[in-house]
Amino acid sequence: MPILRKRLLVDEWVIIAPERADRPQQFETSTISQRSICPFCPQGAELTPPTISSWQSPAYPEEQWAVRAIPNKFPALRVEESPDTGDDPLYQTRSGLGAHEVIIEAPSHHKNWEELSPQHLRVVLESWRDRMTDLSGDERLRCAVVFKNQGPLAGATLEHVHSQLVALPRVPSKLQRELDGANQYHLDHDRCAICDMIARERQSGERIVIENEGAIAIAPYGSRMPFELWILPMDHHGDFMASGESLLQKVAQLVADVLPLCTKAIGSRAHNLILHTLPFDLVGEPYYHWHLQLLPRTGRIAGFEWGSDIFINATPSEVAAHHLRNLVP
Amino acid sequence: MPILRKRLLVDEWVIIAPERADRPQQFETSTISQRSICPFCPQGAELTPPTISSWQSPAYPEEQWAVRAIPNKFPALRVEESPDTGDDPLYQTRSGLGAHEVIIEAPSHHKNWEELSPQHLRVVLESWRDRMTDLSGDERLRCAVVFKNQGPLAGATLEHVHSQLVALPRVPSKLQRELDGANQYHLDHDRCAICDMIARERQSGERIVIENEGAIAIAPYGSRMPFELWILPMDHHGDFMASGESLLQKVAQLVADVLPLCTKAIGSRAHNLILHTLPFDLVGEPYYHWHLQLLPRTGRIAGFEWGSDIFINATPSEVAAHHLRNLVP
Repeated sequence: MPILRKRLLVDEWVIIAPERADRPQQFETSTISQRSICPFCPQGAELTPPTISSWQSPAYPEEQWAVRAIPNKFPALRVEESPDTGDDPLYQTRSGLGAHEVIIEAPSHHKNWEELSPQHLRVVLESWRDRMTDLSGDERLRCAVVFKNQGPLAGATLEHVHSQLVALPRVPSKLQRELDGANQYHLDHDRCAICDMIARERQSGERIVIENEGAIAIAPYGSRMPFELWILPMDHHGDFMASGESLLQKVAQLVADVLPLCTKAIGSRAHNLILHTLPFDLVGEPYYHWHLQLLPRTGRIAGFEWGSDIFINATPSEVAAHHLRNLVP
Repeated sequence: MPILRKRLLVDEWVIIAPERADRPQQFETSTISQRSICPFCPQGAELTPPTISSWQSPAYPEEQWAVRAIPNKFPALRVEESPDTGDDPLYQTRSGLGAHEVIIEAPSHHKNWEELSPQHLRVVLESWRDRMTDLSGDERLRCAVVFKNQGPLAGATLEHVHSQLVALPRVPSKLQRELDGANQYHLDHDRCAICDMIARERQSGERIVIENEGAIAIAPYGSRMPFELWILPMDHHGDFMASGESLLQKVAQLVADVLPLCTKAIGSRAHNLILHTLPFDLVGEPYYHWHLQLLPRTGRIAGFEWGSDIFINATPSEVAAHHLRNLVP
């Protein structure tokens, strides 16, 4: 049974999920699981839990499913848990209530998003939207974190292209701080900070990688690491769940255009890609702007970063953006 | 010139230090620098900046120095900078004022703390204390983060045993949140939260690894990762800089006793070790308790952790502590 424990002194929580390990001395060793049958390929379907939802796609007209969502076989959180609260001021706990799903992003054994067409990537984004929308109907859940772990150095353990969704009964402290900052900026300026950022970047152009009529890829001013990229809807959209096909197609096209530039610039690197959007119960709020954050693993997180949350980045974002723009075909 | 940039929406800062990179497309590839002469060995001294301070040690009676502190050759921050403040609400900046020093922890080419004697480890801790004390005299600086990167996966680029010290003109948000939580607990309970934690752990014993008459090693209740350990003075000590030889000897002995247990349990893993202590201007405050945090790299930081600050840990701390206790000779 997973359980949440609060860390001492800070409002940060840890999910203790002993069933995700066999024995305490066995740990990930940076390798992708090697099996004779890939559990995410159609012929491996018996190895996975049953499908929650599936989606069709123009890219795979003959297949039973083009994208499918399944429960994580080793869930960090479970919908079967009931909410509760420990009252120990020193050692606070919560039940492991939540959801942990895997989105298998294609029936073919592709290994990353660069191998998927923009049309199909749109379906992947639609699957995220639809799973979030479904889970947002559970009143016990407050938000979802959707993310990709690409490559073993970024935490992937299976090669077949997939993403994950974790829905939580509380807003994680990291997202809460971001929401608080966005809200404060909106209170101070009566504008969305991210809209203001996009406008500013479009004036100078120096940190823009590419844009299309609906989406833009920016190396953010305060990049934590070389080639960190944010991919944003050009217009103001706070709630990812409200995204229509047209917007998601433009975002998917931008993703399909920008990923090969990154690979040309820094090689086929492990990376994480994380969706940032409003919690379920704040979808009407005007101060946030959903976006994707792409975090390539160009270095290590060292003791200074662990101790301070201050990242040291030797590649200013305008240098990275310039480099990427020069690679546009 | 390093410069600090604030991240959008959150009170988190990034140090942009372009001089730490040669070219944007060149990145760390998980390897230790291979040179014919180690710059941290006595015969490589000409390759490093000049010594700031050095220390003698009973372990190296014949050597000119047993521990020495030098400026980092590629500093993330520099004392030559002057303080300033950008007034742009969207893109805030600060000058790269601060200090970035390297502590070469032994003249011999040892590779980790397990190869150092407890007596010599005490001298290493004294060198941290002395450098912090010296830097705390600079009124522009508010705190220091002292840390070790052990192994390339934890950010080390040189093999020779060393630690680093970064002094900052502001308290990093991560430390500030910890201080706020400790202060609040003290306001609520009139006791130090960490003292309470030690007392609680000594009652149950289940998360204690080892202790001696002055220090204790605990696998914390809310461990973010398997075999995370905190090493603490048994009695209440808020300010590391006030530590005398006797206390540091007991802490050093505990470190020397606990590290081989970790290696037996999980192998010689990359890890970070981070000193947590009060900022310079808060040394009289009663609510904090300095300690070392040992973070072994048993897995990867994946997209969920990046997006939420919530860690998923498959090894509860009481399991880790039990495992380590069983390895005590």
